[in-house]
Amino acid sequence: MKWMSFKHEGQEKYGVYVPEKKGAAVISGQKNTPASLLEAIQESSLAALLTDNLDHLPFVAEGDIEWLAPIPRPSKNVMCVGKNYRDHAIEMGGEASVPEHPMIFTKAPTAVSAHLSPIPAHRSLTDALDYEGELAVIIGKKGKEISRENALDYVFGYTVLNDVTARDLQKRHSQFFIGKSLDGSCPMGPWIVSKDEIKDPHQLAIETKVNGEIRQQSTTAHFIFPIDEIIHVLSKGMTLEPGDIIATGTPAGVGFAMEPKKTLQPGDTVQISIESVGTLSNTVE
Amino acid sequence: MKWMSFKHEGQEKYGVYVPEKKGAAVISGQKNTPASLLEAIQESSLAALLTDNLDHLPFVAEGDIEWLAPIPRPSKNVMCVGKNYRDHAIEMGGEASVPEHPMIFTKAPTAVSAHLSPIPAHRSLTDALDYEGELAVIIGKKGKEISRENALDYVFGYTVLNDVTARDLQKRHSQFFIGKSLDGSCPMGPWIVSKDEIKDPHQLAIETKVNGEIRQQSTTAHFIFPIDEIIHVLSKGMTLEPGDIIATGTPAGVGFAMEPKKTLQPGDTVQISIESVGTLSNTVE
Repeated sequence: MKWMSFKHEGQEKYGVYVPEKKGAAVISGQKNTPASLLEAIQESSLAALLTDNLDHLPFVAEGDIEWLAPIPRPSKNVMCVGKNYRDHAIEMGGEASVPEHPMIFTKAPTAVSAHLSPIPAHRSLTDALDYEGELAVIIGKKGKEISRENALDYVFGYTVLNDVTARDLQKRHSQFFIGKSLDGSCPMGPWIVSKDEIKDPHQLAIETKVNGEIRQQSTTAHFIFPIDEIIHVLSKGMTLEPGDIIATGTPAGVGFAMEPKKTLQPGDTVQISIESVGTLSNTVE
Repeated sequence: MKWMSFKHEGQEKYGVYVPEKKGAAVISGQKNTPASLLEAIQESSLAALLTDNLDHLPFVAEGDIEWLAPIPRPSKNVMCVGKNYRDHAIEMGGEASVPEHPMIFTKAPTAVSAHLSPIPAHRSLTDALDYEGELAVIIGKKGKEISRENALDYVFGYTVLNDVTARDLQKRHSQFFIGKSLDGSCPMGPWIVSKDEIKDPHQLAIETKVNGEIRQQSTTAHFIFPIDEIIHVLSKGMTLEPGDIIATGTPAGVGFAMEPKKTLQPGDTVQISIESVGTLSNTVE
């Protein structure tokens, strides 16, 4: 299922994307449904919501909605794996910057935005705004000390995430948080694909285009740290919770590493496509 | 006022600490009161709750409560300023590690714990657990692009925070998040002192004792980046929200920098006292 959140007639709603009808079967507002997709994931109640045929649910056409991030307001920062593709680590800092252990930083929940929402340019703060196309994992159940063998059982699903980064701020402040947390710098969506639709999350093509030009083209087969290891390492001493979002890192091809540099300019459209997941599209304001 | 959260008769409550009676005037559960101290701060409704004399409120003796962190579950990660005292920066990495710009990392909300709650030793993960006594700022209202001049208007109050750190994990994972986010590694409290009780947050003595031995002794006058600058820098491109927690950094004297190293061992009691704010005490499990 493709779980989505959206605004319709002024109200925040959620439901399931129906590709053949190009719109959403609306689940929120039905009897006994949680208030948000996040709450439904936290209560593990989504499967129960789907016992009925989707045809019985109210339907809203895609043209009539405003997209929201599937989890518009996470209950903690988005966790991100730094330099998880060898070629990207090398383009940023050479062989020495290929990590031996997962490097985790976070993005503020206030940075989260939706498919098709504008990316603020923050011109007064940065002249080195960059894209990073990433597969994001949504955790589905609470866990600690999760073994690699069981790790994928803790996944609810997957989405596409643009880890928009102000390269100058990232460098200036040494730890990555500030350069990664500008308002609107974490577009996510369009939906969360439940894991049953993804045969192998480590065999997905990933591609980022800027104004139609291919900038990043790789596959999640190239992760240095696969998803099961990331979950295992994170959960060693820290409880993971349903609704947690983990961005898995970006492949080579970011604008800042190009010759000459091609950082994001107002009007640029970034499209990130991940096989079997979807395409996230945002334009810089 | 000293705003506190606690458990009493199995229920989470909040109220105001009454020093002369050694206990809490209970505010939660009264007519029209928000469910938690965090919600009350978010709704800016605390002042309104205090129009009545505290003597009319139910009273609970300190001995009958279990302390909770004043904000037991923040709505995002705790933001922390790294190396904000010159002497600590130097003890950790020499002159070169004194930052020119605020270095911000975060701690997971799952790490937050209370005054008197045990600090898990995480022996299987780390043999370099360390304390960091810090003044924490609680934001009281939403803001962006906040000027230094107006920054302190955005503060709700202050608390004491122990930024417990697994030094080996902090180093191994390069970005600080993992080494700073073990469960129970963010004791906070006992209460939030509202800012009207603090004449000058940049003139507060701060002291950390381990088993009675003084390890850290400094004053917030030694901040490299004062609170108004931290708020100004953070809010340049990122919206700050009521209930946000910003830990302002730790002075010299951490166990890891001692000769020989004195990291935390099971049974060690860490007491952090900040002038006009209070004393936070926790024992390693």
